[in-house]
Amino acid sequence: MKFLFLNGVNLNMTGLREKDVYGTQTLEQINAEIKAYFKNDVCDFYQSNLEGEICAAIQNSQKQGYDAVILNAGAFTHYSYAIRDAIASVSVPVVEVHMSNVHAREEFRNKSVISEVCKGVICGFGKVSYILAAESFKL
Amino acid sequence: MKFLFLNGVNLNMTGLREKDVYGTQTLEQINAEIKAYFKNDVCDFYQSNLEGEICAAIQNSQKQGYDAVILNAGAFTHYSYAIRDAIASVSVPVVEVHMSNVHAREEFRNKSVISEVCKGVICGFGKVSYILAAESFKL
Amino acid sequence: MKFLFLNGVNLNMTGLREKDVYGTQTLEQINAEIKAYFKNDVCDFYQSNLEGEICAAIQNSQKQGYDAVILNAGAFTHYSYAIRDAIASVSVPVVEVHMSNVHAREEFRNKSVISEVCKGVICGFGKVSYILAAESFKL
Amino acid sequence: MKFLFLNGVNLNMTGLREKDVYGTQTLEQINAEIKAYFKNDVCDFYQSNLEGEICAAIQNSQKQGYDAVILNAGAFTHYSYAIRDAIASVSVPVVEVHMSNVHAREEFRNKSVISEVCKGVICGFGKVSYILAAESFKL
Amino acid sequence: MKFLFLNGVNLNMTGLREKDVYGTQTLEQINAEIKAYFKNDVCDFYQSNLEGEICAAIQNSQKQGYDAVILNAGAFTHYSYAIRDAIASVSVPVVEVHMSNVHAREEFRNKSVISEVCKGVICGFGKVSYILAAESFKL
Amino acid sequence: MKFLFLNGVNLNMTGLREKDVYGTQTLEQINAEIKAYFKNDVCDFYQSNLEGEICAAIQNSQKQGYDAVILNAGAFTHYSYAIRDAIASVSVPVVEVHMSNVHAREEFRNKSVISEVCKGVICGFGKVSYILAAESFKL
Amino acid sequence: MKFLFLNGVNLNMTGLREKDVYGTQTLEQINAEIKAYFKNDVCDFYQSNLEGEICAAIQNSQKQGYDAVILNAGAFTHYSYAIRDAIASVSVPVVEVHMSNVHAREEFRNKSVISEVCKGVICGFGKVSYILAAESFKL
Amino acid sequence: MKFLFLNGVNLNMTGLREKDVYGTQTLEQINAEIKAYFKNDVCDFYQSNLEGEICAAIQNSQKQGYDAVILNAGAFTHYSYAIRDAIASVSVPVVEVHMSNVHAREEFRNKSVISEVCKGVICGFGKVSYILAAESFKL
Amino acid sequence: MKFLFLNGVNLNMTGLREKDVYGTQTLEQINAEIKAYFKNDVCDFYQSNLEGEICAAIQNSQKQGYDAVILNAGAFTHYSYAIRDAIASVSVPVVEVHMSNVHAREEFRNKSVISEVCKGVICGFGKVSYILAAESFKL
Amino acid sequence: MKFLFLNGVNLNMTGLREKDVYGTQTLEQINAEIKAYFKNDVCDFYQSNLEGEICAAIQNSQKQGYDAVILNAGAFTHYSYAIRDAIASVSVPVVEVHMSNVHAREEFRNKSVISEVCKGVICGFGKVSYILAAESFKL
Amino acid sequence: MKFLFLNGVNLNMTGLREKDVYGTQTLEQINAEIKAYFKNDVCDFYQSNLEGEICAAIQNSQKQGYDAVILNAGAFTHYSYAIRDAIASVSVPVVEVHMSNVHAREEFRNKSVISEVCKGVICGFGKVSYILAAESFKL
Amino acid sequence: MKFLFLNGVNLNMTGLREKDVYGTQTLEQINAEIKAYFKNDVCDFYQSNLEGEICAAIQNSQKQGYDAVILNAGAFTHYSYAIRDAIASVSVPVVEVHMSNVHAREEFRNKSVISEVCKGVICGFGKVSYILAAESFKL
Repeated sequence: MKFLFLNGVNLNMTGLREKDVYGTQTLEQINAEIKAYFKNDVCDFYQSNLEGEICAAIQNSQKQGYDAVILNAGAFTHYSYAIRDAIASVSVPVVEVHMSNVHAREEFRNKSVISEVCKGVICGFGKVSYILAAESFKL
Repeated sequence: MKFLFLNGVNLNMTGLREKDVYGTQTLEQINAEIKAYFKNDVCDFYQSNLEGEICAAIQNSQKQGYDAVILNAGAFTHYSYAIRDAIASVSVPVVEVHMSNVHAREEFRNKSVISEVCKGVICGFGKVSYILAAESFKL
Repeated sequence: MKFLFLNGVNLNMTGLREKDVYGTQTLEQINAEIKAYFKNDVCDFYQSNLEGEICAAIQNSQKQGYDAVILNAGAFTHYSYAIRDAIASVSVPVVEVHMSNVHAREEFRNKSVISEVCKGVICGFGKVSYILAAESFKL
Repeated sequence: MKFLFLNGVNLNMTGLREKDVYGTQTLEQINAEIKAYFKNDVCDFYQSNLEGEICAAIQNSQKQGYDAVILNAGAFTHYSYAIRDAIASVSVPVVEVHMSNVHAREEFRNKSVISEVCKGVICGFGKVSYILAAESFKL
Repeated sequence: MKFLFLNGVNLNMTGLREKDVYGTQTLEQINAEIKAYFKNDVCDFYQSNLEGEICAAIQNSQKQGYDAVILNAGAFTHYSYAIRDAIASVSVPVVEVHMSNVHAREEFRNKSVISEVCKGVICGFGKVSYILAAESFKL
Repeated sequence: MKFLFLNGVNLNMTGLREKDVYGTQTLEQINAEIKAYFKNDVCDFYQSNLEGEICAAIQNSQKQGYDAVILNAGAFTHYSYAIRDAIASVSVPVVEVHMSNVHAREEFRNKSVISEVCKGVICGFGKVSYILAAESFKL
Repeated sequence: MKFLFLNGVNLNMTGLREKDVYGTQTLEQINAEIKAYFKNDVCDFYQSNLEGEICAAIQNSQKQGYDAVILNAGAFTHYSYAIRDAIASVSVPVVEVHMSNVHAREEFRNKSVISEVCKGVICGFGKVSYILAAESFKL
Repeated sequence: MKFLFLNGVNLNMTGLREKDVYGTQTLEQINAEIKAYFKNDVCDFYQSNLEGEICAAIQNSQKQGYDAVILNAGAFTHYSYAIRDAIASVSVPVVEVHMSNVHAREEFRNKSVISEVCKGVICGFGKVSYILAAESFKL
Repeated sequence: MKFLFLNGVNLNMTGLREKDVYGTQTLEQINAEIKAYFKNDVCDFYQSNLEGEICAAIQNSQKQGYDAVILNAGAFTHYSYAIRDAIASVSVPVVEVHMSNVHAREEFRNKSVISEVCKGVICGFGKVSYILAAESFKL
Repeated sequence: MKFLFLNGVNLNMTGLREKDVYGTQTLEQINAEIKAYFKNDVCDFYQSNLEGEICAAIQNSQKQGYDAVILNAGAFTHYSYAIRDAIASVSVPVVEVHMSNVHAREEFRNKSVISEVCKGVICGFGKVSYILAAESFKL
Repeated sequence: MKFLFLNGVNLNMTGLREKDVYGTQTLEQINAEIKAYFKNDVCDFYQSNLEGEICAAIQNSQKQGYDAVILNAGAFTHYSYAIRDAIASVSVPVVEVHMSNVHAREEFRNKSVISEVCKGVICGFGKVSYILAAESFKL
Repeated sequence: MKFLFLNGVNLNMTGLREKDVYGTQTLEQINAEIKAYFKNDVCDFYQSNLEGEICAAIQNSQKQGYDAVILNAGAFTHYSYAIRDAIASVSVPVVEVHMSNVHAREEFRNKSVISEVCKGVICGFGKVSYILAAESFKL
């Protein structure tokens, strides 16, 4: 299968910031682990701090032939109706993931404006959240 | 007259996505029809998925001598106070348009943070929404 | 085509009251201009301060053969679920219009209980709002 | 017994509009069935699109000797404090009825401003709602 | 001076209904007392259960030369933006009155949509509320 | 026909508690009257203070061949999404009944989480509420 | 009769501050006019910026034999449940007055926590508000 | 590892009800598949319609030596603070799962009162949701 | 006197869970201390995780001759209108107690749906809360 | 032990006002009873209608060596963040008491802004509320 | 220049209470440092726990010739519309200051009712907040 | 010291737009003044209309050795949780500044989603706001 692991704003800081929340591995290290885990699948990775580029990546996922998009939208999760619309505009299934359990943090993280148009949601398992999301398409 | 037709995030997907809502014409085809309709006027077109570039386009519209901006901000409509401030910073009149009747869709589409600083609002007429908006300056 | 321009409560005061908001033309003068603009179409005009009579006019529009109703419901816009139900009960398309940009005025004018069942909404263009609404059926 | 079956705004469209919600019988046909069902009682029927006339009918019900008013206020149900006060001003018991299950439709139909001053509420049984309401006074 | 005492929906039931709240005098008796109190002024009285007729009465008050309108809008007070707009459309000062202390009754009576455009508000003094309102123009 | 009259929490106290609200008949006496009224039908009765048992009774109603369930869920009405889901899981029509007019009591009783998935709602007629609910299936 | 005119916080600034709202007369001048108007009655005046002293003045009004308290609580109106309780603790009738129409100003001035326990409310008539309040006890 | 798969109210109806939402497999069939998938682990299954028994099962999970509880609380998810407290009272990690994407259904399903005290949340993958939840402990 | 100490859901975990909040004594030990303290009174104890059984215990308290019920409803406090109705259905006074200061914990613990129908509320004193509640009947 | 019984605004009216709510004993009589009850302890009493003086009394309680403050803040309970901060600024434990069950009265009395920083809350037991509060420190 | 540094309720406890929030310097020490910093200006200091005295200090600031008032209103910030009105009644500019970052503390500290009528707001810099506020008038 | 003055969306329009709110100096002129004021410090300036670039600038501030970031996020202040997270991801202190008093403008400007994670907030002093913010690190 062909997966796109898409990370939104500030996720380039993973492993560098708030290590009690996000752990000490960098995004690159996490991506490498994911790639190793799904060694028989195509795993592509993209991160951007720009909401519009995340939208574009989702828009393009269909014609690029991805079977699924694994999306950690970061803080965009809570207000980006633009990303919501981008997800709704493609038929590629998108899974919303978060490394932390967003429900156990600040109240504003309780609201996701994208869940409604995603296939499903996985949060709270650290880097394993990404793996479970992709794994869901293989079970 | 000189018009700027400005389209925000995901509108590059028009005609390609959710065809029951937005019809089957692409944005390019719609723009071409608009251009033909106003063949005696200058009609420029710009689309961006980046909120900041939409702001810049509005900021620049004044010194570029546009008589009016016809703005379909897409999902930005519902939360981009940045675009709102950009509109308020220029004296060029801006008309807010939507192809679909946003009031007959999801509840979040009921709230526009830009209407208050626009000259007027037109929604629900498909591509004709753009034409009516420009036409309003000629009547 | 055959249009019904329907005006609700207090619109008989147009041109007589709050001239900074509504201009100095009376409703009769505006209607005359509209009639002149659409001189090849049938344009009928009706105004009432009674919510029930507006409902009846909408109910009857279908059997009277109107192609469209252009409705400025005035203050009824904000609470008359009766008019909403009347609109939903006919297959004639109804366009909601306002002369002023209701979003730039008092907060209660932000809420329309009829938009959801109208074909579209046009506001902010003075008397031109009526013309654009009818024009939309000819484009 | 002497019953007044009182129908508010747009109910004159019953059987003519939204037939999936309200069925195909007209109000006249429904009234005829009710009359037949309660052939040993006095059954009067009144419909108006004017809120003030509904109020007057309720006000007058007492001196006209009605044992009960069966009221389907239509959309007035959701905002007419005037009808509420009219009900509170008479000692004739008023039963609120709706043909459809208003709780399974749009959210605004969930709120009734008249229930509190009625004897009871019956909704969801089509024309049978009227019959049950009157029947309640005979059990 | 020339006063118009304007009473809205259900106030024709005064003295006939809920006597613990409104007393035992009818509206006619109250009007007669007011007329006697202001025997050197012109005092006209009008009551209607129809919102649109209350609007019309306010609209006409200006050309009829009234110095002030004393308005007890009854239940319309709580939702009639139509009456609000009618008040705003004339330069004749309108005083909002209520016989009961509306703040000590049901919660919905706490909200008046017309206070903002009235000159002042007087409530809680029974029939004396009307007299104080007119008296305010003579002090 | 075969009816299941299902009573929820605290309804075993009927006639023993708050007699001004619920009357002086016990639930057994009311059930006996209902049985007598529908002497040609099968009338079964079940009461439980346990939410889960009410759910089970609804779940089982289908395979037990009931034509309808008449449900007075008591206080569960206001928060038991479990009962709501149980109702939605069967094709047997369920009618929500209340003996008192819940809209004329504490505010929390205004909200029913089960109405949306019931066929209809009847409240305010004391024990007659149950009879009307069953009667509705015979008219 | 014996009246206590009680003024709360900042009303000692009347005539000195925001003259467009409160006029140019000082509180002392207004009090003198009131005294002159009711020259056959006992008129006492008290102003304090301390909420607790306003409470004490209300508490004491009963044993001091006042027939009525005319209270302009100023900004305390909007949050002082202490003053509310003080009013409720005496049988002397208290009338709430405001010189400006509080409903036409900032939104927070729309909420009065004391209206519910007052006899009535008068606002919008400048210094005349005080006179009407006292006058109400003489009609 | 030793897993407890705990299913709350109405989940015994899985495969029997709303098959478009929950699929056509019964809970027993799903459990069998899970057991087969984790054939090297201990997988226990428990379902109850009684909130208190779900609480007890969670309370007991610790002394019974479970490594994790996979909890689909059904409708209890949205209001059972009792289950929340039960989860918080044990150190066994609990994962909240739902077969459907609860965010794409009725609004009340958007609110979970238990997410905050769970390790993580997985929803939208049908029976695979259970498998991913358990799998998360093995990665 | 004869007291019933009634403990709701999860209180069987007292002393076993969250010891920083609830201390290290088990419910049995606390009950023993209470019994010792009131050695001249009858003290009965009952705990259940089932809401319906708590309701039944309250319902039965009257015929069992209890002078008072001391109720720690646990998490049921925050949503169980069923328990509220059970309390309202008996004339035995019920005192609501909590060991922790619920107002200093999560926000949802601030709302009690049972306080309104209890005689009084005591919270924040650990096991002493129970003793004070019973003591209140002896002072 | 050394206790400070602190009473806020209007509590000097106890026994003089609303006797159905607060009983017929004056605050002095209640204080005398408390003193007698705790005859082996130091019991000091202070009442003020001034919020700032209540704050000062709390501030000073620490250096004056009180073991506990028993605080009935009266109406200040519902809005005085000043008293809240004063409580938080001392290490002396403060118990919030009310004679009436505030949860069974007006809705505004349901909200206490001080509970969160108090050791505990006791309400509904009349003068006994004070005694229980002090007693809590001796058990 | 002539500055008035005005401190509201509980600020006399600075340095004595919650030292992690407010530091260990007393208000007197802080004032001394401020005086030293602005040794060429007139710096007066006033603290009161009484809201009315804070109002009076603001009222008097104008005739006392202050160029600016630096106001730390403490907890009054969050509800004292009285202080708000006092600020609005003088033309002396008032700057709102807080030593802590109020936005990073309890939610109620997020709302200031006085910011709207102040010249500006400075918070989060400890004692330096006062200095920056005064410094702003010298730049 | 080394300061980064960071300006968000539309601040490039300063001095060009709404001059009554923002003055007539351009951002370049303001920056030049700031540079002159802190001539012994390193002052860098960056402006972007792109939210993601503002995030990146904050992310990079740490490794670039800035002692503090002075951030005027413009309209992003009110909804950009992305910027909030970027601030939280670095240990460099960030001060939120606004030239205008945002609390005295539209209501949406009252809400800042970034204040909670900033060191402090300064608003209302025009260009001086920037200077005070930097000055705070030198006192």
